[in-house]
Amino acid sequence: MSNTRKVAVVVGSLRKASYNRMMAHALAEVAPSSLQLEIVEIGALPLYNQDSETGTPPAQWVSFRQKVKPADAVLFVTPEYNRSVPAPLKNAIDVGSRPYGQSVWDGKPGAVMSVSPGAIGGFGANHHLRQSFVFLNVPVMQQPEAYIGGAADLFDDNGKLKSDSTREFLKKFMASFAAWIEKCAAAR
Amino acid sequence: MSNTRKVAVVVGSLRKASYNRMMAHALAEVAPSSLQLEIVEIGALPLYNQDSETGTPPAQWVSFRQKVKPADAVLFVTPEYNRSVPAPLKNAIDVGSRPYGQSVWDGKPGAVMSVSPGAIGGFGANHHLRQSFVFLNVPVMQQPEAYIGGAADLFDDNGKLKSDSTREFLKKFMASFAAWIEKCAAAR
Amino acid sequence: MSNTRKVAVVVGSLRKASYNRMMAHALAEVAPSSLQLEIVEIGALPLYNQDSETGTPPAQWVSFRQKVKPADAVLFVTPEYNRSVPAPLKNAIDVGSRPYGQSVWDGKPGAVMSVSPGAIGGFGANHHLRQSFVFLNVPVMQQPEAYIGGAADLFDDNGKLKSDSTREFLKKFMASFAAWIEKCAAAR
Amino acid sequence: MSNTRKVAVVVGSLRKASYNRMMAHALAEVAPSSLQLEIVEIGALPLYNQDSETGTPPAQWVSFRQKVKPADAVLFVTPEYNRSVPAPLKNAIDVGSRPYGQSVWDGKPGAVMSVSPGAIGGFGANHHLRQSFVFLNVPVMQQPEAYIGGAADLFDDNGKLKSDSTREFLKKFMASFAAWIEKCAAAR
Repeated sequence: MSNTRKVAVVVGSLRKASYNRMMAHALAEVAPSSLQLEIVEIGALPLYNQDSETGTPPAQWVSFRQKVKPADAVLFVTPEYNRSVPAPLKNAIDVGSRPYGQSVWDGKPGAVMSVSPGAIGGFGANHHLRQSFVFLNVPVMQQPEAYIGGAADLFDDNGKLKSDSTREFLKKFMASFAAWIEKCAAAR
Repeated sequence: MSNTRKVAVVVGSLRKASYNRMMAHALAEVAPSSLQLEIVEIGALPLYNQDSETGTPPAQWVSFRQKVKPADAVLFVTPEYNRSVPAPLKNAIDVGSRPYGQSVWDGKPGAVMSVSPGAIGGFGANHHLRQSFVFLNVPVMQQPEAYIGGAADLFDDNGKLKSDSTREFLKKFMASFAAWIEKCAAAR
Repeated sequence: MSNTRKVAVVVGSLRKASYNRMMAHALAEVAPSSLQLEIVEIGALPLYNQDSETGTPPAQWVSFRQKVKPADAVLFVTPEYNRSVPAPLKNAIDVGSRPYGQSVWDGKPGAVMSVSPGAIGGFGANHHLRQSFVFLNVPVMQQPEAYIGGAADLFDDNGKLKSDSTREFLKKFMASFAAWIEKCAAAR
Repeated sequence: MSNTRKVAVVVGSLRKASYNRMMAHALAEVAPSSLQLEIVEIGALPLYNQDSETGTPPAQWVSFRQKVKPADAVLFVTPEYNRSVPAPLKNAIDVGSRPYGQSVWDGKPGAVMSVSPGAIGGFGANHHLRQSFVFLNVPVMQQPEAYIGGAADLFDDNGKLKSDSTREFLKKFMASFAAWIEKCAAAR
């Protein structure tokens, strides 16, 4: 596991003070040194419309695809909107999946963490995402699952994680993800 | 069933030559005269971001909410993107569900038709949508289910439905939806 | 709402000391007097096999169908097994849905409560059940949703509900269900 | 890929003339020689009840677990009942997942094929199964997905596959599964 692996991180909420963004930073802090996490922004992506693929597609689409393409793995940290995937995240997934035959997701090992203020921890968003990954050929880490509830109590005023038990879980989650990435890479 | 009921129709694809848009028009043609269908456009809605609710929210959000609010019922006609709901449609749902406590969907009877070129007919999108409707308190018509596959062969060059068996099904679907709307309205 | 409505209650766990069974009893205690809840047992039903429908179907299947058939509504109280519906409950649903054209579920208003010791409260079982109800034409109450977590702390040694806040929620849940049943009945 | 890998095959239908059983045989015929497929029967398993784990659990449970345990991989071939997993198959999964900490599924590479007479090909069963596999830590092959519709026309009177295009797909499916199994095994 000495190779450095680039992980493209997609955060499902566009809020500036998003708990999910805080969580993405916390994940980067505890990740094994072999993983290099970088958030790829999705807030400026125009809504996916296949008609815009012909001629010159939107510059933001092209740029997004170019940022995800070279990554070795993809990590999704997301809230749940209306018991499913937030629209901005689904849009990033749809944009990245096209044009036909050029999906940037194809074959990249993936992981999902869902984070919400409520008790349930985004179960609905988590599993709807996983259904998309079947089609997108993203081998997703199964265990440990990560449904983080009560998000409002996990961070201090500076957006830093203050829960030690959560930090321990995040460490375990990222170590497992690192192992999953190596597993997928080794066998290609 | 003599009352006229306004049905807000949301089409999940932004393509100009979308089969789903053709289907929405076909549904309007065969609907009982008591139903007045109108497509509410979703292509210009900025991606949902809760931060934008404070101060002056985007004019397109406000306009969309104002168009859906007075409708008696909502009808969704959608393709499937990556085994789930297309981003533009999920965005419309998220925009309409906010601000907190002011959802335009709340309590409106709903129906879902999924339409795709492939054989499966958008099953994944159809049921992911339904999961959102639990949270949004949209009582959805259960039967008949509508998974329309092979969409490329259903319409002529002018976008008119050419399949008689499909037209018969659409009639049945809309008659059932009209009955479902009355059922929900009668008992309020 | 003066009519008495019979509600067939199906408990998803076969354990004697099941939290879900305790919950079913608690629901019966707080239900509006217009509702008459009765648990229909499912533990003795042979696994569904279509071959057994020909000739003389298993007596337990026949008996189960006869008990559910006359009910005005159906209520499911269930744990989650492996992120989905427990096998005994799915078996009851499959048995009740056959033979073709004679489903005992058809058209009956329904409600779902999922109960688990963990934090998530059976979200996966809850929504997988709802997907079946689309096909089975069971109009399900959408709100309030009921995902009851931390079940081990809710009951005393005699299996009686000891949480007042949960009791208040159960009251609200059953009052809403009573209203939903009337809504569906009124408009038939 | 010279190692022989044992694949435990679970068929979701108990019907004698089940299309899914025919399909399991067809899959065994076209599988790479490195794979050794064996159907593990599930029709005699008593419904899962945790109370029966104490003392002497049912002999059929013990036997089932012993048959799956030594397999290198698991393959599920299943119809859809009521838009979800058939009860007998869910029962086999629940039985195999217990007692706590001794799941026979844990870590085994898996694949899913859903087969139905209708057009949709068991999409609902296929993806509900996949949700269970997240919890069960079964890394499932994502591509190719296998939703086989129109099953009634695929087999001759002797239950032999007569469709050449389907046979080609089955070959591709099993070759991909063999590669997936090696991938998972190589990296352990």
